[in-house]
Amino acid sequence: MTNKVEKQSPHHVVIVGGGFGGLHAALSLGKAPVRVTLIDKRNFHLFQPLLYQVATGGLSPADISSPLRSILNKQQNTKVLMGEVRDVDPHQQKIFLNKGEITYDTLIVATGVSHHYFGNEQWAPTAPGLKTVEDALEMRRRIFMAFEAAEKETDVEKRRAWLTFVIVGGGPTGVELAGAIAELAYSTLKKDFRNIDTAEAKIVLVEGMDRVLPPYSPDLSAKAATSLENLGVKVQTKALVTNIADNVVTIRQGDNIEHLEARTVLWAAGVKASAMGTILAEHTGVELDQVGRVMVEPDLSIKGYPQIFVLGDLANFTKPDGKPLAGVAPVATQEGKYVADLIVKRLAGETSPAFEYFDAGSLSVIGRHSAVADFGSVKMSGFFAWLIWVFVHIYYLIEFDNKLVVFIQWTWSYFTRKRGARLITGDESLGQIGVDDKGDYFIAPKIKVSVKA
Amino acid sequence: MTNKVEKQSPHHVVIVGGGFGGLHAALSLGKAPVRVTLIDKRNFHLFQPLLYQVATGGLSPADISSPLRSILNKQQNTKVLMGEVRDVDPHQQKIFLNKGEITYDTLIVATGVSHHYFGNEQWAPTAPGLKTVEDALEMRRRIFMAFEAAEKETDVEKRRAWLTFVIVGGGPTGVELAGAIAELAYSTLKKDFRNIDTAEAKIVLVEGMDRVLPPYSPDLSAKAATSLENLGVKVQTKALVTNIADNVVTIRQGDNIEHLEARTVLWAAGVKASAMGTILAEHTGVELDQVGRVMVEPDLSIKGYPQIFVLGDLANFTKPDGKPLAGVAPVATQEGKYVADLIVKRLAGETSPAFEYFDAGSLSVIGRHSAVADFGSVKMSGFFAWLIWVFVHIYYLIEFDNKLVVFIQWTWSYFTRKRGARLITGDESLGQIGVDDKGDYFIAPKIKVSVKA
Repeated sequence: MTNKVEKQSPHHVVIVGGGFGGLHAALSLGKAPVRVTLIDKRNFHLFQPLLYQVATGGLSPADISSPLRSILNKQQNTKVLMGEVRDVDPHQQKIFLNKGEITYDTLIVATGVSHHYFGNEQWAPTAPGLKTVEDALEMRRRIFMAFEAAEKETDVEKRRAWLTFVIVGGGPTGVELAGAIAELAYSTLKKDFRNIDTAEAKIVLVEGMDRVLPPYSPDLSAKAATSLENLGVKVQTKALVTNIADNVVTIRQGDNIEHLEARTVLWAAGVKASAMGTILAEHTGVELDQVGRVMVEPDLSIKGYPQIFVLGDLANFTKPDGKPLAGVAPVATQEGKYVADLIVKRLAGETSPAFEYFDAGSLSVIGRHSAVADFGSVKMSGFFAWLIWVFVHIYYLIEFDNKLVVFIQWTWSYFTRKRGARLITGDESLGQIGVDDKGDYFIAPKIKVSVKA
Repeated sequence: MTNKVEKQSPHHVVIVGGGFGGLHAALSLGKAPVRVTLIDKRNFHLFQPLLYQVATGGLSPADISSPLRSILNKQQNTKVLMGEVRDVDPHQQKIFLNKGEITYDTLIVATGVSHHYFGNEQWAPTAPGLKTVEDALEMRRRIFMAFEAAEKETDVEKRRAWLTFVIVGGGPTGVELAGAIAELAYSTLKKDFRNIDTAEAKIVLVEGMDRVLPPYSPDLSAKAATSLENLGVKVQTKALVTNIADNVVTIRQGDNIEHLEARTVLWAAGVKASAMGTILAEHTGVELDQVGRVMVEPDLSIKGYPQIFVLGDLANFTKPDGKPLAGVAPVATQEGKYVADLIVKRLAGETSPAFEYFDAGSLSVIGRHSAVADFGSVKMSGFFAWLIWVFVHIYYLIEFDNKLVVFIQWTWSYFTRKRGARLITGDESLGQIGVDDKGDYFIAPKIKVSVKA
């Protein structure tokens, strides 16, 4: 280690995870008398709220990503390291990578969450979730490939299965995906095929609770459901997916059990904490919640370890009403800034009040020109909410990087209804529609590859 | 088959391959009294001349791709089919897919070429070539990962090997890649790392002939070499790569043999014809050249089979000087238009003169603001040639789709020297820097996945 910064400022803040929480902590520490090391498995920050746009061919991965190094390259006290943290020793204050270890004075863990199939992990290959760029490209591949397979299929029943899309989970991601697929089928792709009418596609959104977007007010949930139905999405609430196998999705709604033939199933139903939660619990005895998130103190630290903070989706910060703060970008961002501020104060011998989330409101988009917005006292839906949604997202994207391009893409797609990023990519062999032993078409599932030196 | 068009126009033109040749043939037949089926393995047309920009993080795949269906969706006589042709029966006038067969009246084959390692296929995993979007993403992953690995490596020798990039082949692709990597290392990435100085990177361009860009005039070749050297690229001509193994590239230049430690080797040296060449030769007895390209008649048809045409990179159309036309986009485009015109004339009972290529000139770019242009009597190099290069490429991109976005990206990167598409992606497990048995870092090579139903 021959780092100039190292000698100047002895207090070392190590941040694990470059999502909204970790990145904002790093940015807020840019001028603090500390040195910062930000570690991430990937070399880029991902603007996850727009990942569904990549999954549906509206944007390219690079449009919603920024290299961590270029975001932080002006901060002389900050080092970016691409790597994965394997273990933590909270007593010696060390973290371990696959090669080498790093000593910290303060540790911030913000490694987020991944999908959760509620004990049905065997559904994972059939019903991919949406957390990473690779997930989004896999969804994109499946969605567009399904239309290609339908165009080739001559059997009416089988063709219908190719044109049936089931989205499991009626939260923001599920609603956004369903809306975008409806747009694709009923508008963007309408003129592109000769053997099929893409408008015959069936898009089903399945939600276990009694309404979509459960965190919103019942009023807005109802408006979102109406917007979705106007777009052509079939919204099924109080409905549970009980099985996914052999291209059939089993949906139980009260006493009614439906077997739906669908070749494309997208998972937007549940999350579980990343491995860092378990690792921290093992070494510090900190409590985890049901999905493995770390129960944090009012200042986002771990009980008994004031120098370890957990934030973003990985943290369970319990509100006075007993519920945890939602796993959304504004929460993580504010938590990151709060912890950075606390560290600076602590070094100056000052104390910080408990973390408090300022809720500026929630926004969810439904298709081409509809959204719902909940600003507490003000609730909105429809076109105006959609405009706000567009500008808020562009604004935050531009914060890191000049993502003017995204704005132009959107304006363009809005008027033309085109989607430029409709590429079916992946390994060459995955780009094909196969024929199985029975002579039926299939899309090869994405298979994990094994890696060797 | 319940196609309206089918009944109106009995003459069926089947086009295999949606590159420049196939696509322009299809576009030129848009209003002809025929029905057209365009078959491609992929669902998009790729603007291959800019693929090196994707490989070096300047553009996203979608920026240089357009969905074939949306390019052709206004042509009522045209059908697009995603699939791979497995075999041809020229006597029954049929082609065979993995499921089903299609009868043609006229067949146009334009399936292009892939890389060629001159009998050293074992180099393929170490030295990837650049033909597909996936190839470009793989190059991008390796280039950016190499800088990440160098940042982590503490051993000076090993670090130098991570910062050494060898580009094999001094044609347009090799020159463009070398220039872009030099820009990355010596300018874009300069401030992004803390442990390494990216300006210490060594970029070596190896060419077997006595000069780079052999198809250009010696004068322009010399200017290109000077431009490259000004950018910091080491240009080695009359040099042959004789081995690539264990992170060492062996280069023979006359009697001098050099063993260069390099972790990144990019292949831009040779091409071989796609499988359709062999399939056609088998069934028609047509002659193939040394790299498997189909020897075509003056009207681009196959000897004895006036209803089968081969064009683009797959065709060897011999010029009066005995050399084949170059495998570049303008040749393929003109050939596609020529064959479309010939078909229309033939249906009207007219004949066509032999194909003649109108050479509007050649352009190659070298880094951020230099290029060489050869318009026959007018030869140019430097900034003005670069400007022409930019406008010509934007113009052709816009022809199919509104790729205004590309223009904005470029303007932006030109002034900021940023490259927005610097994502290291791939399978999750491929996004990591591994540690091998000896404790050395390695980047997992991309491994072919096997596909099953």
